[in-house]
Amino acid sequence: MLVLGNDDVERLLGMKDCIGALETMYRDYAHGRALLSPRVDNLVPTRLDGAYYAFKHMGGAWPAKGVQALRLNSDVITHPVVAGKPRRVKQPLAQGRWVGLVLLFSTETGALLAMFPDGIMQRLRVGAASGIAMKQLAREDVRTLALLGSGWQAGAQLMAALAVRPWREVRVYSPSRQNREAFVVKARERHGANIVAVESAPACVAGADVIMAGTSSMARVIEPHWLRPGMHLSCIKTQEVDGEVLDGCHTVFVHTREQAKQIDNVMKDTPNVPSQSSRGWWNDGSHNVARYPDLAQLVAGLAPGRRRPEEITCFVNNVGMGLQFAAAGALLLDKARQAGVGRELPDDWFTEEVHP
Amino acid sequence: MLVLGNDDVERLLGMKDCIGALETMYRDYAHGRALLSPRVDNLVPTRLDGAYYAFKHMGGAWPAKGVQALRLNSDVITHPVVAGKPRRVKQPLAQGRWVGLVLLFSTETGALLAMFPDGIMQRLRVGAASGIAMKQLAREDVRTLALLGSGWQAGAQLMAALAVRPWREVRVYSPSRQNREAFVVKARERHGANIVAVESAPACVAGADVIMAGTSSMARVIEPHWLRPGMHLSCIKTQEVDGEVLDGCHTVFVHTREQAKQIDNVMKDTPNVPSQSSRGWWNDGSHNVARYPDLAQLVAGLAPGRRRPEEITCFVNNVGMGLQFAAAGALLLDKARQAGVGRELPDDWFTEEVHP
Repeated sequence: MLVLGNDDVERLLGMKDCIGALETMYRDYAHGRALLSPRVDNLVPTRLDGAYYAFKHMGGAWPAKGVQALRLNSDVITHPVVAGKPRRVKQPLAQGRWVGLVLLFSTETGALLAMFPDGIMQRLRVGAASGIAMKQLAREDVRTLALLGSGWQAGAQLMAALAVRPWREVRVYSPSRQNREAFVVKARERHGANIVAVESAPACVAGADVIMAGTSSMARVIEPHWLRPGMHLSCIKTQEVDGEVLDGCHTVFVHTREQAKQIDNVMKDTPNVPSQSSRGWWNDGSHNVARYPDLAQLVAGLAPGRRRPEEITCFVNNVGMGLQFAAAGALLLDKARQAGVGRELPDDWFTEEVHP
Repeated sequence: MLVLGNDDVERLLGMKDCIGALETMYRDYAHGRALLSPRVDNLVPTRLDGAYYAFKHMGGAWPAKGVQALRLNSDVITHPVVAGKPRRVKQPLAQGRWVGLVLLFSTETGALLAMFPDGIMQRLRVGAASGIAMKQLAREDVRTLALLGSGWQAGAQLMAALAVRPWREVRVYSPSRQNREAFVVKARERHGANIVAVESAPACVAGADVIMAGTSSMARVIEPHWLRPGMHLSCIKTQEVDGEVLDGCHTVFVHTREQAKQIDNVMKDTPNVPSQSSRGWWNDGSHNVARYPDLAQLVAGLAPGRRRPEEITCFVNNVGMGLQFAAAGALLLDKARQAGVGRELPDDWFTEEVHP
């Protein structure tokens, strides 16, 4: 059983490879050759004042690669009000750290193959989904990217955009000047591209071919009057757009339509549990996720993408899929074994000689 | 993070303690103070001929003890026909061993506290459920026990019966003479009680106060004409009894009524997937599990148990609950820490400094 760290995942797993692995998986999934396990959110009270404990898990089996993945998060969550708006904050109470894990099993032998933290892969797969959608939906000749957000997720969105199109200019806007400038310095160091920080959202999107949102906002960040013929829009959560924006687009894809399988499992008296209704519906209740085709259908050619250069296309990552961890995980495991990376623990600690 | 083995679980966890821990948990659960996570069965094809891969997981959070448990099974399963009847066989393909694991998390910090194989705890908690039901439902003065079955599960059923009532005689029957005699030799060594093997099922149940089934049979093993006033019946799966037997009882309890939360998630083209319909209904389709109260209601006094000595009572363990692993797991962890047992792995292998 191989134990890997986030540093291993970061070193071994590039965005381009990740996009390739996920694309193949989506195609299989669209044809019924991969199984999505429902995401389950268990929420119960905890002792910390105003907090609740959330145990989330999702999974997926991809027989072509012989893997079953289980990704889980074990978090104490609070909702402090910052600048008048409630935020969702995961408290790092495990000796100052967070707890998110991916377990990979063999569908051929049953064995637990590997365990590793989910953080690096988490944003890689969110980025890869946006990248795949952009590759399929954006015009070939897009050259100016407007990136909204300068946090952890925005970094992976940038990696994905760089992986699928050549950019003349990337503009980054987020409300905090300090954050966006620090983000740009780091991004240039890493990618060497023409990446600049701009002073306002309008300055960011003016003349942009693609607007990519990668924020933690709970309210719309892409404004309807920004839409121009030929644009591609991309966002990592439903809250970043709304019905008005979607109605301004010709072609909209969501990440996954399989919403019914997501389960909220909440203990009574659990405080401060946020409404999760935005998963299946947009905030204003006007647009059901199921009315749009999804990324797997796009990749498999089962739903038409962009038809004309002047169309406006949009990809909304409405919710993650455990299968992404099966695809990225299988790739990671191959690479780790080839590179001889990770800590091997005795298999017999994780197997047994009795069974029910 | 503490890694324990089945030998540790066996040494540390006694049936009486286990019954005590589960009883407290059931009471909390009945009052909405513990959260059951749905059981999910993911079934996909695998390369082995005639086999499928099954990834099962179930969980539960018990805030009073600060634990969230996740129990998972990763199995390659075949259905060979033995003596004209299909059997469900888990293939030990992980270097000759099986894969079942319990993970315990802290609902206070989120940390992964422990990992251990599920085998020993699995049968302890099945036994404990039967023991709790027997303690609550059987007459105080029962003295003769008929045990049907001589396998792994039957062993735990015997432990449970011995933990809750003093027996004058325990009779064991199973179709294979060799198995039942070997079982009895081992049981006497371990428990020192008056335990005998008998030649037939009728000889086993004649004059018995309690009939306990602990078999792997897919067809009825308790016959309706065996029922006598004052008896208590117990079984570990719905198939061991049917509507006719249940109709002969005055009071029936199932293990859990929360069936709706159990999810079969099957990939198309998965071969040989058995029908799971017996979970919610008896094989003949006549008796819905939801028509009977459950063990948690019995323990909490929310549903009446035995009212008169001549009543016939029955407990049917229709399906397991992940919460049992939270209760037994919390107890195990306390005992392991007190005894300084297990392998401690560095916590930072299972935590991270980034999070989505």
